[in-house]
Amino acid sequence: MRDGFAIAIMAAGKGTRLKSKRPKVLHEIGGKALLLHVIAAAKTVVPASEILCIVGHEAERVKAAVAATGVQFVLQAEQRGTGHAIQMVKAWFAETGVAVPENLLVLSGDVPLIRPETIDAICDVHLREGAAMTILTAVPPNPTGYGRVIRVSETGPEVTAIVEQKSLTADQMGAQEINSGIYCFRTAALFGKLDSLSTNNAHGEFYLTDVAAMLVADGERVVAVKAESVDEVLGANTIAEMMHLDQAMRMETAKKLMAMGVTIFRPDTCVIDAGVTVGADTVIEPYVQLLGETRIGVECRVRSYAVVQNSTLGDGVLVRNGCVLDGAEVSDGAVLGPYAHLRPESRIGEGAHVGNFVETKKMTLGKGSKANHLNYLGDAVIGAGVNIGAGAITCNYDGVNKHLTTIGDGVFVGSDSTLVAPVTLGDGAYVAAGSCVTHDVPAGALALGRSRQVNKDGWAARKKAAQEAAKKGC
Amino acid sequence: MRDGFAIAIMAAGKGTRLKSKRPKVLHEIGGKALLLHVIAAAKTVVPASEILCIVGHEAERVKAAVAATGVQFVLQAEQRGTGHAIQMVKAWFAETGVAVPENLLVLSGDVPLIRPETIDAICDVHLREGAAMTILTAVPPNPTGYGRVIRVSETGPEVTAIVEQKSLTADQMGAQEINSGIYCFRTAALFGKLDSLSTNNAHGEFYLTDVAAMLVADGERVVAVKAESVDEVLGANTIAEMMHLDQAMRMETAKKLMAMGVTIFRPDTCVIDAGVTVGADTVIEPYVQLLGETRIGVECRVRSYAVVQNSTLGDGVLVRNGCVLDGAEVSDGAVLGPYAHLRPESRIGEGAHVGNFVETKKMTLGKGSKANHLNYLGDAVIGAGVNIGAGAITCNYDGVNKHLTTIGDGVFVGSDSTLVAPVTLGDGAYVAAGSCVTHDVPAGALALGRSRQVNKDGWAARKKAAQEAAKKGC
Amino acid sequence: MRDGFAIAIMAAGKGTRLKSKRPKVLHEIGGKALLLHVIAAAKTVVPASEILCIVGHEAERVKAAVAATGVQFVLQAEQRGTGHAIQMVKAWFAETGVAVPENLLVLSGDVPLIRPETIDAICDVHLREGAAMTILTAVPPNPTGYGRVIRVSETGPEVTAIVEQKSLTADQMGAQEINSGIYCFRTAALFGKLDSLSTNNAHGEFYLTDVAAMLVADGERVVAVKAESVDEVLGANTIAEMMHLDQAMRMETAKKLMAMGVTIFRPDTCVIDAGVTVGADTVIEPYVQLLGETRIGVECRVRSYAVVQNSTLGDGVLVRNGCVLDGAEVSDGAVLGPYAHLRPESRIGEGAHVGNFVETKKMTLGKGSKANHLNYLGDAVIGAGVNIGAGAITCNYDGVNKHLTTIGDGVFVGSDSTLVAPVTLGDGAYVAAGSCVTHDVPAGALALGRSRQVNKDGWAARKKAAQEAAKKGC
Repeated sequence: MRDGFAIAIMAAGKGTRLKSKRPKVLHEIGGKALLLHVIAAAKTVVPASEILCIVGHEAERVKAAVAATGVQFVLQAEQRGTGHAIQMVKAWFAETGVAVPENLLVLSGDVPLIRPETIDAICDVHLREGAAMTILTAVPPNPTGYGRVIRVSETGPEVTAIVEQKSLTADQMGAQEINSGIYCFRTAALFGKLDSLSTNNAHGEFYLTDVAAMLVADGERVVAVKAESVDEVLGANTIAEMMHLDQAMRMETAKKLMAMGVTIFRPDTCVIDAGVTVGADTVIEPYVQLLGETRIGVECRVRSYAVVQNSTLGDGVLVRNGCVLDGAEVSDGAVLGPYAHLRPESRIGEGAHVGNFVETKKMTLGKGSKANHLNYLGDAVIGAGVNIGAGAITCNYDGVNKHLTTIGDGVFVGSDSTLVAPVTLGDGAYVAAGSCVTHDVPAGALALGRSRQVNKDGWAARKKAAQEAAKKGC
Repeated sequence: MRDGFAIAIMAAGKGTRLKSKRPKVLHEIGGKALLLHVIAAAKTVVPASEILCIVGHEAERVKAAVAATGVQFVLQAEQRGTGHAIQMVKAWFAETGVAVPENLLVLSGDVPLIRPETIDAICDVHLREGAAMTILTAVPPNPTGYGRVIRVSETGPEVTAIVEQKSLTADQMGAQEINSGIYCFRTAALFGKLDSLSTNNAHGEFYLTDVAAMLVADGERVVAVKAESVDEVLGANTIAEMMHLDQAMRMETAKKLMAMGVTIFRPDTCVIDAGVTVGADTVIEPYVQLLGETRIGVECRVRSYAVVQNSTLGDGVLVRNGCVLDGAEVSDGAVLGPYAHLRPESRIGEGAHVGNFVETKKMTLGKGSKANHLNYLGDAVIGAGVNIGAGAITCNYDGVNKHLTTIGDGVFVGSDSTLVAPVTLGDGAYVAAGSCVTHDVPAGALALGRSRQVNKDGWAARKKAAQEAAKKGC
Repeated sequence: MRDGFAIAIMAAGKGTRLKSKRPKVLHEIGGKALLLHVIAAAKTVVPASEILCIVGHEAERVKAAVAATGVQFVLQAEQRGTGHAIQMVKAWFAETGVAVPENLLVLSGDVPLIRPETIDAICDVHLREGAAMTILTAVPPNPTGYGRVIRVSETGPEVTAIVEQKSLTADQMGAQEINSGIYCFRTAALFGKLDSLSTNNAHGEFYLTDVAAMLVADGERVVAVKAESVDEVLGANTIAEMMHLDQAMRMETAKKLMAMGVTIFRPDTCVIDAGVTVGADTVIEPYVQLLGETRIGVECRVRSYAVVQNSTLGDGVLVRNGCVLDGAEVSDGAVLGPYAHLRPESRIGEGAHVGNFVETKKMTLGKGSKANHLNYLGDAVIGAGVNIGAGAITCNYDGVNKHLTTIGDGVFVGSDSTLVAPVTLGDGAYVAAGSCVTHDVPAGALALGRSRQVNKDGWAARKKAAQEAAKKGC
């Protein structure tokens, strides 16, 4: 954390080129809004209270999306350029009475790959050089179209100005170093120039870039620092570009995991969020998605088409094809699926099995218990060594309230039985197949709730005869 | 539409290199047979009645596959070359008495990427140049193996001949411009030469390309026009090549949608047919398939592994992982899946939910109604605000006929209940869990169709004792 | 098969760079451990009894994983270098009294792409040249880091030495030919030098490569033979490299199948094991997995996200999206899924249907029979022309034993019925929907096992009134 610094993040723009109603900074890559990536990087340098998000287009929606980060918001109701955005920041300090920080770092809400190390490097250079303005630059393969940063000399850090593409002189046409739109300012120097900005340009906007030449004219030091990679400072202007960043970000995560001993078949086909951890010798098959704050132990296997979100898996867990987990906790050696659906607050015990076409929600399944076929188990506490037969269902909802099903250890629930909650099955109880259980079953008792079978001999022949008679009658 | 033009499409070949019993022109890319792509392009230029498909190998199968387009068919019973195919066209006009069009455009049924704009361009050049024959050409990176089009001069359109690879003179070896096999003819000029074609060549076939030199010898104008891209005139000779065209075609569709504001994560992994429309701000996750005439509104989200075919989705619909939709209509704000299977004539109301492992068919689910777990709902009309419990099933089939289940508004159908159609549940009716409903239920009534539960205390212990006694007895 | 040859496979190493507890040679590509690929290639040249696997790190685990191949094992308890490994082989022959073969081929357990043809070529050269040692070499794009093979002259096969990267003289720096670590020795010549190896080197290990110079010094012939491709002799040192080999291997399989008339959309997205066979005109959609010893007939279609393992499909079978098959047999014209789960010993008859969310296990479904919705069918023999209604379930397990359900031809099993095994339904029997069947049903009889429905009019209103009264009471 740095003292004497605040960070302003540009997040007021519309992103017209996206053809989207969604504000540009709320488009997502790597499972997270662009702006949230930038805020996360900013928070490694200053506390959230020193981060000012400049919002404008769909301001309320943007604020709602990032409110949990604890950042401050500055409203730029009309979007009249980057200089105008910083004028709003200056006004915000004046209105709120918050102390103006010595230095102000300016980031872009749509440049999500910016690394904490780079932000740190800008601040370091800024202080070391005693600069009024420090500009993060990059040298892309083709600089055409970008504003160019013109240095005093090739070897020194000092800059004379930032020049837009169309204003480049014949002399400057060869300049390769572009302005990233990321800057650090001595706040007093910056704020002193804001009133002098004009809209006398092609777009009729206030350009923050104009401050560079103004400061130089005053004899202030304006310096440049090059980013290590171009990618880091590139924004995304189209959806196709964002999709490209998304894939690149996730592939990096897959590579890191492989280097730590995780086997990931077809790593480029998996969707793995940056916050996911996976233990060594776990095998991830192709087309798997590991999302959010998922934690996976060692020696697990996650088969193809499974999606695991915000869940915790112990060691040696087998997740078969097509399972969908969200907010589940799965203990060591458990076996899931194929096509098991574990919803939030599902807690699966050690070595337990949840089989195909089974849905669980807000329930606990004890050690070694099995629910292997076509079950719905919601609002239930199920003990150890229990066998839940095919098609057995907990009826947790009566149309008004949800109720609990409690099943003791070693219970056998016959196939196709219906457990109408609230209901308790004691340890070692046995429910006959096809029963509807509406009252508690004592430990060790058998519950029967089905009709006696009656066979009507010759029925099929009589029915056929009747049908044929009916046809003739027509 | 152009007057004075007919189009002949070569579709009689076997495609031996494919090692397939399926005729080559019926292999599919982009979800549609090669030949259907070509017919679709042709129909933008002339009406279907002016399109002659030349069929031969598995002629009946080819005709059946494209009959719905309304094109005419010319039979080339033996496949004796491209010249022979056009001889059959000439004979067809003679036999049917159909008026011979002034101009005849010749397309290949296995060159599916041909664009309407290109066909138009050939016709325009043909008319403007007053040509007897106009040849569509291309300049591929490596022309080896292709017939070469030899121009009179580099700058003019006039052609002297089409020369096969092996007949190239030392002089012509450097010729880069290849014959695409797509031509426009003045019909009278073409038909006048067909009888002079010979089979005096390596394959013993009649070559249509020989017409070029014949016409030139007669002093007719033969001209060439270059295709904008090589891809457009390339056929596919192997399955691997067709798969490549397929992927390229679908990627183009994904790119177009992204440019219109649709977010498509990993666009290269999605399978999107050309006829699909998607509204802005809809998010398509990786590994999604949107097929046929699917229409999707704005601000939807289609999660991974879902397949949506010939279905219509309103705005704000959430399709969770692995749903399969075919011929379904889903209203605004509905939530599906994961693993919901909506079969034809499923109509899901506004804000309704169809949950995991639920199958629907020929049914209507009213506004805000929910069927969330393990249901089969076929041949049913279900009102608004209905709750269908887990595992509840409509029994629509009695072994002979299908019957209808009608459920009024606000009905509560308990879990694991069985609705034996034909049956009607009045508004606000309540079906107890585990009931088998065989008769109508009046509005506001409770239907019970299950046995009273009996508990047999101490049963488990007695059973165990009996089992152990039995073992000892052995 | 060659006489006079044995093969030693180096499989004792740990593979530290993988960061994995699993021994390196047990990591899998193409669905099979690296070592099993090498053993399979070796077995094309000599019988298993002549193959010696040198094991060390996790020796028992490695032996268990490949025991079924019938190879011999030589223990290298400490891993002190490649020379040391062969010293153990020499000792093994001395201890076991097994006759020493005239020639010994040395392979690496982590070089899985080695082809039988290449092994044969080494042996041929070895014999033809009368060599004491024959070295397989390759010329990679960048040889830096590899041991280099120094030839006497550019044109001849004779080698002077194998030189490690760091020991290269200025003269040798340009040498492009690398040592693959695969050799053939005249055994007597090799064994005569093993005691002279020293650990006087950077790693303090016995290097087998030192034998080359020793033999040359003795006037023995040491020759080199170049591998046709570099890939074949490359090992995998990181998980990322192994994943790359895996994808390359499977893509080769897909290409071979396409060349034989199989349509595979997005072949790079499918996971197809080398042992799979598929008939012409079968269509494999994207994201399909065909694993193990799967056999698929002609004109089938396997839709996306299906996983077919060790199963046999007849002709014209349709496997819909997301089906999971393991050890199943499916006859001509059957239709599966979507989301059918066929477990081992499922035998599906001609034209039979197994529909969505249906699980089968150890069962037979007769010709034309249908089980289309939400069924569990385990331990069952089901005849022809049977209709299994939605949600019907076989209860095969009583908590202790599994029992059989037998269903005759033409039986109709109503929806949501429960068949408690052991039970037999005679031909043409009819089970009413919602019935629990605990006793046999004679042929042609109707079985009813459900309660009569009772409607309680006005119940919903009374319930609501009671609930409101209760609220007021609070």
